[in-house]
Amino acid sequence: MNAQETAPTGPRRAGSEAVTYLDHAATTPMLAEAVAAMAEAMGRTGNASSLHSAGRRARREVEEAREGIAAAVGARPSEVVFTTGGTESDNLAVKGIYWARRAADPRRNRVLVSAIEHHAVLESAEWLVEHEGAELVLLPVDEVGRVRPEVLRSALEQAPGRTALVSVMWANNEVGTVNPIAELAAIAHSFDVPLHTDAVQAVGILPIDFAASGADALTLTGHKLGGPYGAGALLLGREIAAVPLLHGGGQERDVRSGTLDTPSVVGLATAVQKAVADAPRRAAVLATMRDELVARVRGIVPDATLNGDPGDTVIAGGPSRLPGNAHLSFPGCEGDSLLMLLDAQGIECSTGSACTSGVSQPSHVLLAMGASEAVARGSLRFSMGHTTTEADVDAVVGAIGAVVERARRAGSGRRRAAVL
Amino acid sequence: MNAQETAPTGPRRAGSEAVTYLDHAATTPMLAEAVAAMAEAMGRTGNASSLHSAGRRARREVEEAREGIAAAVGARPSEVVFTTGGTESDNLAVKGIYWARRAADPRRNRVLVSAIEHHAVLESAEWLVEHEGAELVLLPVDEVGRVRPEVLRSALEQAPGRTALVSVMWANNEVGTVNPIAELAAIAHSFDVPLHTDAVQAVGILPIDFAASGADALTLTGHKLGGPYGAGALLLGREIAAVPLLHGGGQERDVRSGTLDTPSVVGLATAVQKAVADAPRRAAVLATMRDELVARVRGIVPDATLNGDPGDTVIAGGPSRLPGNAHLSFPGCEGDSLLMLLDAQGIECSTGSACTSGVSQPSHVLLAMGASEAVARGSLRFSMGHTTTEADVDAVVGAIGAVVERARRAGSGRRRAAVL
Repeated sequence: MNAQETAPTGPRRAGSEAVTYLDHAATTPMLAEAVAAMAEAMGRTGNASSLHSAGRRARREVEEAREGIAAAVGARPSEVVFTTGGTESDNLAVKGIYWARRAADPRRNRVLVSAIEHHAVLESAEWLVEHEGAELVLLPVDEVGRVRPEVLRSALEQAPGRTALVSVMWANNEVGTVNPIAELAAIAHSFDVPLHTDAVQAVGILPIDFAASGADALTLTGHKLGGPYGAGALLLGREIAAVPLLHGGGQERDVRSGTLDTPSVVGLATAVQKAVADAPRRAAVLATMRDELVARVRGIVPDATLNGDPGDTVIAGGPSRLPGNAHLSFPGCEGDSLLMLLDAQGIECSTGSACTSGVSQPSHVLLAMGASEAVARGSLRFSMGHTTTEADVDAVVGAIGAVVERARRAGSGRRRAAVL
Repeated sequence: MNAQETAPTGPRRAGSEAVTYLDHAATTPMLAEAVAAMAEAMGRTGNASSLHSAGRRARREVEEAREGIAAAVGARPSEVVFTTGGTESDNLAVKGIYWARRAADPRRNRVLVSAIEHHAVLESAEWLVEHEGAELVLLPVDEVGRVRPEVLRSALEQAPGRTALVSVMWANNEVGTVNPIAELAAIAHSFDVPLHTDAVQAVGILPIDFAASGADALTLTGHKLGGPYGAGALLLGREIAAVPLLHGGGQERDVRSGTLDTPSVVGLATAVQKAVADAPRRAAVLATMRDELVARVRGIVPDATLNGDPGDTVIAGGPSRLPGNAHLSFPGCEGDSLLMLLDAQGIECSTGSACTSGVSQPSHVLLAMGASEAVARGSLRFSMGHTTTEADVDAVVGAIGAVVERARRAGSGRRRAAVL
């Protein structure tokens, strides 16, 4: 692929190098093939629900996309429910399965959700508490951010007949820790409880096989894997009932109404198939660069610590940490200051999730892992992806020393000011 | 604009002319400018919630798009809530406002919805009945498909303190009848009840001014006006509370979480601004072609009848019927047969809404207008848009006589077979 065509095009600072984009976990550049497929599809007309030739052609494109995605992630085509992305898939899974389970058995009102879920899962579950009489159990994680199987088992044993569903993400978006989804799903099933997993950070990066994982529902989204925004899917086991969030024309097995977005579906399928095919190669390359980044940064800032799993073991045939994720804490610094100072040097990264707008707060993920608030506030996430090169690692290594020093001076200045 | 670039590209039949696409109410070809703006935006990276330069640039693009849309439809920028289209906006308005109103006053559980709404509104309201203890009142329409102001007033008077909201579409998607939204909103307000209007068929076609209309919430969507699928908005008055359908990062005033789809938002804004600017000219051209189509078809099939409002009066400064809509009943024919026979001649139209998948049923809109089931089954919608030309009218006129004759023979054959 021509890197020129897919490289991020943020504004360049006068006299500086090209931008170093290390925020692929927030969103990754679209693959040139996905842009081309979408742009071509946007030139065609036809509502996939229309009966005439143009409508039937659009329907064929959608169904071919569905088959392509299903084959890439080990699902049946009928299990692919197209949505508008991760947030919608998570909301549909958590609320839709909850409603269906509780309707079938009113005692099932418990929702078991890991403490490190994305807000789309956490806030959905909290809304069920406020609005639908749910009882929310936050599953604690260990110090690397992983849900241990015995934790889930014990939470299920507390009220065996009352749990509606379990939701545990495949890989955490902030610290990159991978969960043992197949083990967790098997435990949930032994209590007759379905498991949903938010896999937006994992699909196209880790080996994912929906059928083999045993998960009953799985969230994936386009813009994390080289596809478009506004296009995703919920893989939903054929025997799993979910009450729709969006009512209307009855599209998508009556689970998700709304006119099918044929161009985005085509772009999504293009990206999923390419990303999945390329994942083993890319994972190896990224892990090597990630380890190099961490080692070189710690060579310059020796008290910086890597948060999360070291990534040196194997889970479900893949690494135990997302290969492109380097999440570091810099004692004595504010993450926001580091972020802005690096941005001024043309290096784009994040303090954690980009998906929360508004006031900066210490990461709920790090706090759940037992980090102090100061450590949680002083952290940065560098996330690598398909356009990342050694030059990006060099850029971070070249800038990080001065940036950390400056952030520390600013921090101690603020602390002195607070004392005065 | 180069019509070549935006003309529908359905498969051509061997030896036939180019396809005549007369299903713009189902979806209309994207404007070349919107495709270009989106394709360009897809080449840039940056999550609009990210704090670095790429994120801030994406945020600026989103906010400029919001301002452009607001200015085009008479809303404030803060009133534009981006969604993924008409179905989501309708669901958010009906369910979200219902939940907020009932939470503020538990007696308010009545939902007043016109009998001719799109399924996205009707099914949302029906779900509130089944699931949330709502009481649904279907507002009847007159013989042209219009909600008369006195009908709304009398429905509100029946239970003045118990109504949560009113939802009446701006213009009907099947028969094209325009409702007097400003009058209806004023009546609703005199009972302290907010009004939502599904205006997906009206924006970019009729003169729409959100502020002047008095509506509290208004649905618009991209793919009906030359923008992308999967992009729409709910215009939501600043003082109108709505409980979110999608929880997560708290984007869009905390009413609609989910990563903003910057390219689609840019494409949507491009299309809204162009369509609105061009609407007066296009409306006049389409109305003339529409009247000609109706007259010439009725010259060939004298017992064909035009359903809905004749379109010869003025409502809120615009025509009383959508200018591109010709909805005709052909006695003794099945609409599905007509559709397929016309499709075989390269003419693409619809029997009604494309948005309902599955088994063909007589239109709830025509039945609500008092049509018999036979009339409802024997109808076709020709809907014109920005690529329509006189050649499309000629194509229909050239084909309709033989097609109707053939559909009638097939119909009477079936009736004879049923007798034997």
